[in-house]
Amino acid sequence: MERVFRHFQEELDQLKERLLAMGGLAEERVRKSVRGLIDRDTAALDAVLSGDVPINDLHIEVDDRCVKLLALHQPMAADLRVIVAAVKINTDLERVGDLAVNIAEAGKRYLPHPPVKPLIDIPRMGELAQTMLRDALDAFVRRDMLLAQAVLAADDTLDALKTQIFRELLTCMIQSPGTIEPALDLILISRHLERIGDHATNVAEDVIFILSAKDVRHPQADSPRSNEP
Amino acid sequence: MERVFRHFQEELDQLKERLLAMGGLAEERVRKSVRGLIDRDTAALDAVLSGDVPINDLHIEVDDRCVKLLALHQPMAADLRVIVAAVKINTDLERVGDLAVNIAEAGKRYLPHPPVKPLIDIPRMGELAQTMLRDALDAFVRRDMLLAQAVLAADDTLDALKTQIFRELLTCMIQSPGTIEPALDLILISRHLERIGDHATNVAEDVIFILSAKDVRHPQADSPRSNEP
Repeated sequence: MERVFRHFQEELDQLKERLLAMGGLAEERVRKSVRGLIDRDTAALDAVLSGDVPINDLHIEVDDRCVKLLALHQPMAADLRVIVAAVKINTDLERVGDLAVNIAEAGKRYLPHPPVKPLIDIPRMGELAQTMLRDALDAFVRRDMLLAQAVLAADDTLDALKTQIFRELLTCMIQSPGTIEPALDLILISRHLERIGDHATNVAEDVIFILSAKDVRHPQADSPRSNEP
Repeated sequence: MERVFRHFQEELDQLKERLLAMGGLAEERVRKSVRGLIDRDTAALDAVLSGDVPINDLHIEVDDRCVKLLALHQPMAADLRVIVAAVKINTDLERVGDLAVNIAEAGKRYLPHPPVKPLIDIPRMGELAQTMLRDALDAFVRRDMLLAQAVLAADDTLDALKTQIFRELLTCMIQSPGTIEPALDLILISRHLERIGDHATNVAEDVIFILSAKDVRHPQADSPRSNEP
């Protein structure tokens, strides 16, 4: 029994390690897509567009690991919640990888146009979204409640940046209709970054749920978290 | 043992019934948000904005049911995959509810402006997204492979509609800069509807995975499914 238990803990640690690896890949893809936009580097954007195989492979592997852990070890209570959370986190990280692709696609449409402005706060949104993602995964692995709560707080900042970017770009479009196309792509990119922050928030909420057995996902039943400006 | 097994099947059936109820609520909220936009009915949009309590309650309930089923019955093989899929489907349905809120918010910003056009294909996108959602859940409950595959095919139609709407509205904005603000909200609404279709697609992919033990989620490793125009 002791040996089976040790084996389970090893596999659970491996699962966390694979999720961290996946998080690292997702973050790197977000970083590269935003850098490609800032540096006007089409090759970097192309690398994001063609480079989703490793993260997709990990997505399938992590799902399999979760199902096998549940089937072979029939974990109880706290461990069970960790594995159920891992299933969800896996989905969130895969979507982050997809959003990096969306950013790269919008970036490739944007680059042939003259720059709208010095990209306003999009680089800052990119940094913040990456930090949130990293912190949420660290909180999961280290079981760090405070760090998970910091991610939730950061999401408000990210939303505020998105709203501000939306207003500035709308003004741009109305004042200089020649900027409509590229400004629209910047608005879409800011939305993708906001959604990356939402996925980091989901992960942080799962961590808080594991640690406190308290569900923070619908704190104010009558005011849903919005992703609109 | 026989009795425990029957009890498990009953609870599994209840879980599916609750997921269907949640799907019904999510679909109704999407329907109401799109109808509110088409009929210029602010009260309907307000009802969507204030009515997310039941779906959020179900979200928590379904998660709890999944964890309890895993903990108490330690299901194996096929049943285990159904429950893991239920965890994911639950997340997808809750997000669909959030997207209905986003549509209602954009609708409320849109309505005070003069209509851009007769809303182009947005009503059709709304119908299609709702059908996809209903079919995906029916496929889950009835274990219907063909229906699940039909949902994947419908997603291509939805993406094509979104791309066409984007082009038409971009032309509108460039030709009549007075339409920039409302046209932008219609573009965002079409994105929200497309994401609802993506969630229905996720559900359909989970169904195919359960039925065939084959992973269809990353069929072409070098051409990720895109949600960009």
